[in-house]
Amino acid sequence: MKRSIILSNLGSCSDRYVTEGYDAPVSLKELFQQLKKLKGVDGVELVGTWHIRPNNTQEIKSMLEEVGLPVVSIIPDHFGTKYWGKGAFTAPDAAVRQEAIDSTLRICETAHALSCPVISIWNGQDGFDYPLQADYAALNEYLIQGLYALASREPDLMFALEYKPKEPRNHCSIPNVYSALYLAEKTGLPNVGVTVDFGHSLLAGENVSDAICVAQKHHRLAHIHINDNFRMWDDDLITGSVHTIEYLELFYWLQKIGYQGYLSIDQYPYREDSLQAAQQSLDWMTMLERTASRIDPEKMDAILKDQDAVASTRYIREILLGA
Amino acid sequence: MKRSIILSNLGSCSDRYVTEGYDAPVSLKELFQQLKKLKGVDGVELVGTWHIRPNNTQEIKSMLEEVGLPVVSIIPDHFGTKYWGKGAFTAPDAAVRQEAIDSTLRICETAHALSCPVISIWNGQDGFDYPLQADYAALNEYLIQGLYALASREPDLMFALEYKPKEPRNHCSIPNVYSALYLAEKTGLPNVGVTVDFGHSLLAGENVSDAICVAQKHHRLAHIHINDNFRMWDDDLITGSVHTIEYLELFYWLQKIGYQGYLSIDQYPYREDSLQAAQQSLDWMTMLERTASRIDPEKMDAILKDQDAVASTRYIREILLGA
Amino acid sequence: MKRSIILSNLGSCSDRYVTEGYDAPVSLKELFQQLKKLKGVDGVELVGTWHIRPNNTQEIKSMLEEVGLPVVSIIPDHFGTKYWGKGAFTAPDAAVRQEAIDSTLRICETAHALSCPVISIWNGQDGFDYPLQADYAALNEYLIQGLYALASREPDLMFALEYKPKEPRNHCSIPNVYSALYLAEKTGLPNVGVTVDFGHSLLAGENVSDAICVAQKHHRLAHIHINDNFRMWDDDLITGSVHTIEYLELFYWLQKIGYQGYLSIDQYPYREDSLQAAQQSLDWMTMLERTASRIDPEKMDAILKDQDAVASTRYIREILLGA
Amino acid sequence: MKRSIILSNLGSCSDRYVTEGYDAPVSLKELFQQLKKLKGVDGVELVGTWHIRPNNTQEIKSMLEEVGLPVVSIIPDHFGTKYWGKGAFTAPDAAVRQEAIDSTLRICETAHALSCPVISIWNGQDGFDYPLQADYAALNEYLIQGLYALASREPDLMFALEYKPKEPRNHCSIPNVYSALYLAEKTGLPNVGVTVDFGHSLLAGENVSDAICVAQKHHRLAHIHINDNFRMWDDDLITGSVHTIEYLELFYWLQKIGYQGYLSIDQYPYREDSLQAAQQSLDWMTMLERTASRIDPEKMDAILKDQDAVASTRYIREILLGA
Repeated sequence: MKRSIILSNLGSCSDRYVTEGYDAPVSLKELFQQLKKLKGVDGVELVGTWHIRPNNTQEIKSMLEEVGLPVVSIIPDHFGTKYWGKGAFTAPDAAVRQEAIDSTLRICETAHALSCPVISIWNGQDGFDYPLQADYAALNEYLIQGLYALASREPDLMFALEYKPKEPRNHCSIPNVYSALYLAEKTGLPNVGVTVDFGHSLLAGENVSDAICVAQKHHRLAHIHINDNFRMWDDDLITGSVHTIEYLELFYWLQKIGYQGYLSIDQYPYREDSLQAAQQSLDWMTMLERTASRIDPEKMDAILKDQDAVASTRYIREILLGA
Repeated sequence: MKRSIILSNLGSCSDRYVTEGYDAPVSLKELFQQLKKLKGVDGVELVGTWHIRPNNTQEIKSMLEEVGLPVVSIIPDHFGTKYWGKGAFTAPDAAVRQEAIDSTLRICETAHALSCPVISIWNGQDGFDYPLQADYAALNEYLIQGLYALASREPDLMFALEYKPKEPRNHCSIPNVYSALYLAEKTGLPNVGVTVDFGHSLLAGENVSDAICVAQKHHRLAHIHINDNFRMWDDDLITGSVHTIEYLELFYWLQKIGYQGYLSIDQYPYREDSLQAAQQSLDWMTMLERTASRIDPEKMDAILKDQDAVASTRYIREILLGA
Repeated sequence: MKRSIILSNLGSCSDRYVTEGYDAPVSLKELFQQLKKLKGVDGVELVGTWHIRPNNTQEIKSMLEEVGLPVVSIIPDHFGTKYWGKGAFTAPDAAVRQEAIDSTLRICETAHALSCPVISIWNGQDGFDYPLQADYAALNEYLIQGLYALASREPDLMFALEYKPKEPRNHCSIPNVYSALYLAEKTGLPNVGVTVDFGHSLLAGENVSDAICVAQKHHRLAHIHINDNFRMWDDDLITGSVHTIEYLELFYWLQKIGYQGYLSIDQYPYREDSLQAAQQSLDWMTMLERTASRIDPEKMDAILKDQDAVASTRYIREILLGA
Repeated sequence: MKRSIILSNLGSCSDRYVTEGYDAPVSLKELFQQLKKLKGVDGVELVGTWHIRPNNTQEIKSMLEEVGLPVVSIIPDHFGTKYWGKGAFTAPDAAVRQEAIDSTLRICETAHALSCPVISIWNGQDGFDYPLQADYAALNEYLIQGLYALASREPDLMFALEYKPKEPRNHCSIPNVYSALYLAEKTGLPNVGVTVDFGHSLLAGENVSDAICVAQKHHRLAHIHINDNFRMWDDDLITGSVHTIEYLELFYWLQKIGYQGYLSIDQYPYREDSLQAAQQSLDWMTMLERTASRIDPEKMDAILKDQDAVASTRYIREILLGA
């Protein structure tokens, strides 16, 4: 599998208490220097505003050339400044809603310039916090129209909806895989897809492979983010640090369905050395993929056809820990 | 709003520990006698097997006439006997999958005989319990095909998908409102809709009114179940016993969108007198609806247009507790 | 580690929908025949009423002799009949509260007759379901008094409190490890301890090893139940079928603290062959314990002293999947 | 009931995405000016570092005099700078652990100077993020020793432990009310108590009044924080904006037990005007307390003695919405 990393993962993290950051700030140049030290990464994912600014496309291009990595996805900033505080595509202010579209289209220019095929839409500020705060049908309509405006204007880019049930809004507008699929369907366009984030999917109560397989079946699987958590919150831990069997299952299915995209690290190593944390995620992926490749597809197929939990847990244990 | 009750709510409840039931068993005849004592109920909802058997349509008909209530929905039994233990529409055994369709079509005959317009599909045994137990795309396909088989054969009945994330399967096949909408869409038929159960929706992390409004916007809102819980599990408590503001919000939206269906009580009063528990739910509904009717739609519209949480909480407090 | 199983795990399971059971009923004699077929079990745990009746101590004794296994713990029935429906030690009826004590003392006689050292108190019906249903300080006092009455009368038995946050009551009286420790402390007696159930601990949001180590530090760790779940509910799945790293961590600590008690299987294989499901749990335990024994205590000590998450996840990955 | 507010609630909020803040920064002086505009507040709660600095005691004193409000509690900073990133009382570095004690003792001097009786300990960075990251018994011991060092040195101050299950650590060291009570008990000192935060208690799966009543019964209830959330996370919403019945229950019990302390607003109005959001919380409190005062204690006592959920929900509905 091809692996990438969201560039900001190599910098410092803040939270609502430690606003100064758990570590010293890291410049864009230093982020790329960190990136160069990572072993086993095949691409990089950039975030609008944090990395991409109106006039730095050339600068980014040369730094990319130096590390020799492609940009696999760009995440436009719809979440990281107070401008988007009350929403982007579903903001109460029509001008903000329009700017959500316009600014995304501008970043599509950057994507073309950087030969990046995927725009990962993580509109985390779209949604609501309180009961009786929103006209739900209107928000739903704003979102469908906004996505249509993007995807119809940029047919050569894939707009991948990164769903998440909660945070930063208490109720986010695209909470689970089926909401992303439904919204994509309602645009009527083929270039609206889904980004499945391992941790968001767990938080949504999903089995991640279920989300992946259903999205793939309906031709909408576009991108994958990886990390780990304890199912209650988007803890953004080191990939593989908590879940083993569900990661083995994921790699089994990715091999089986012939996934051609990237697995992109999206973690928040608040208290850890960010470079080491990223390297651990890559190393977990290497070993999990290797282990999963020992699953015999015919044998597993037969188990799955019977939906036989006993046979399945016996087989995966033998693969993982030996007979 | 028109109110109904699932008939079994007036009997005894079991759980996995107290399999004998927390109260003495109650016969079908006694359930109808209980029903007669309820004040403020406009219809009844029946469950296949539990209430409807191959040869008792006439018996039910005469009992219905005695209480003078219509059947507003029938829930075919896809969950209550060990036959369905490994699933109905998605069971590993093709014969069981076929019987899920056939038995539902048979119950459609009963629905016609009883002039019942809605078949509420609660296929709680469809899904999986363990990682690596299921071929997710196959389950998804089985479900779409099964629903298509039903709705295409019975165009005059509405098939309302009652989604629920968990229980009795650890992962149920239709976990949230968007999954129900997406599956309905994929049948390509207009008579596949959604049953929003208040408690299931909370358990899915949804705002219930959001689910209701989005389903209505897409012309798929078919039926509503009510009860209450603590968001962590389908506790099936007395309606209104926990949530006040979200119920006021629900009544506001039901009035606003002109909901013509029923609010059907679906609760499990394990340790309470079941008749009294049902009466409390009806009395809560009466008072919540009355309170919600004091919300001025123009004023609320303006608040919602601004997505103004402060104005909203102030206004709803004045409605609820006075200025 | 010594392993045992709750005898009922080898029979059929019911839930609130399938009250008849997902399988045919299994007699006590048949349960012992199943038990005999299990490989790698060192003891058995019995449940009051379900297995122990007023006059069957001799019968049980001879069946135990035939399988050649000791009774490691008895769970008195405070949960499985409608008599306890509104609580045992905290029931509103004083006569029920007294009977909770008296019936437990009677089962202590059975424990002595069977040389069983541990009474596992799982008072699942103690608690409340609704807001404004209980006088919380009174319930707390009833519980402390009830536990004192037991432990002061039977100083040679260990009363192990099996905590659980939820189910069958919406709020159970002993929700987490610290509540069990606090109540034990308040009895002022040394023979009140804690049963840590792996699944209950996850449901309580705990790290299971944290619960185990803190209980052990305060000399109150008495017994352990094992199974698995998805953290949201007491799914009672096959041990090891979901969590790998947290089970390795548990075995590491059990070895480190020199745990002398039993790991007792407590699962509900609703849809699986119960004997095979139990065997899988034993086989997972064997392999997890073997894998955990490869962790070098000195190396792990150094990591833990530094609280170094990166070093820890690297080391456990090398143990589990190789370098 | 006496009401207070944590001063920072009147400023701007950040989160991990919008590190610049959802609003412009607000100076200490401006915070006090905001405070002056609030109607119905009886005291203020200060946060170490954020408000209290080595040399600003006199400045604070004069600003307090201007607003005419007492300091009801001080929260030492054990969480808001990267210095505490890996913990305070349980940090891996012994020097940090010592500084947690020393810096708290220094802030006790400020408390004396400001006649503040309560030190609210919210050691949110104490705990761990990953499995196999911590020696749990050691952390438990560090915490008991640290609390003992504080409370034994400052017998005239109450050290109130503000428990919380999660955030900023994935597992916090004092996760629920019973952990706070147990740790307090283990110090052997009477001046270690509990701060019950409404939202933290919901997040811990507790009924808040249960936590309050049990802490009070054991003479450890020291302070209360109020806000609201959806039970899944510490959303820190406007008090009363979500939960009505559980707030009525809380006010019922506070009146019943004769609570003499403060109800202190602790919210994060990310996207709202902070002054208006605080005012709404005060206004909700006024009306909720007024409504709760209509509950007849004798009648409620009888209901609670019977643990009668039906009578309870009927009575509270009549109080809230009329008969």
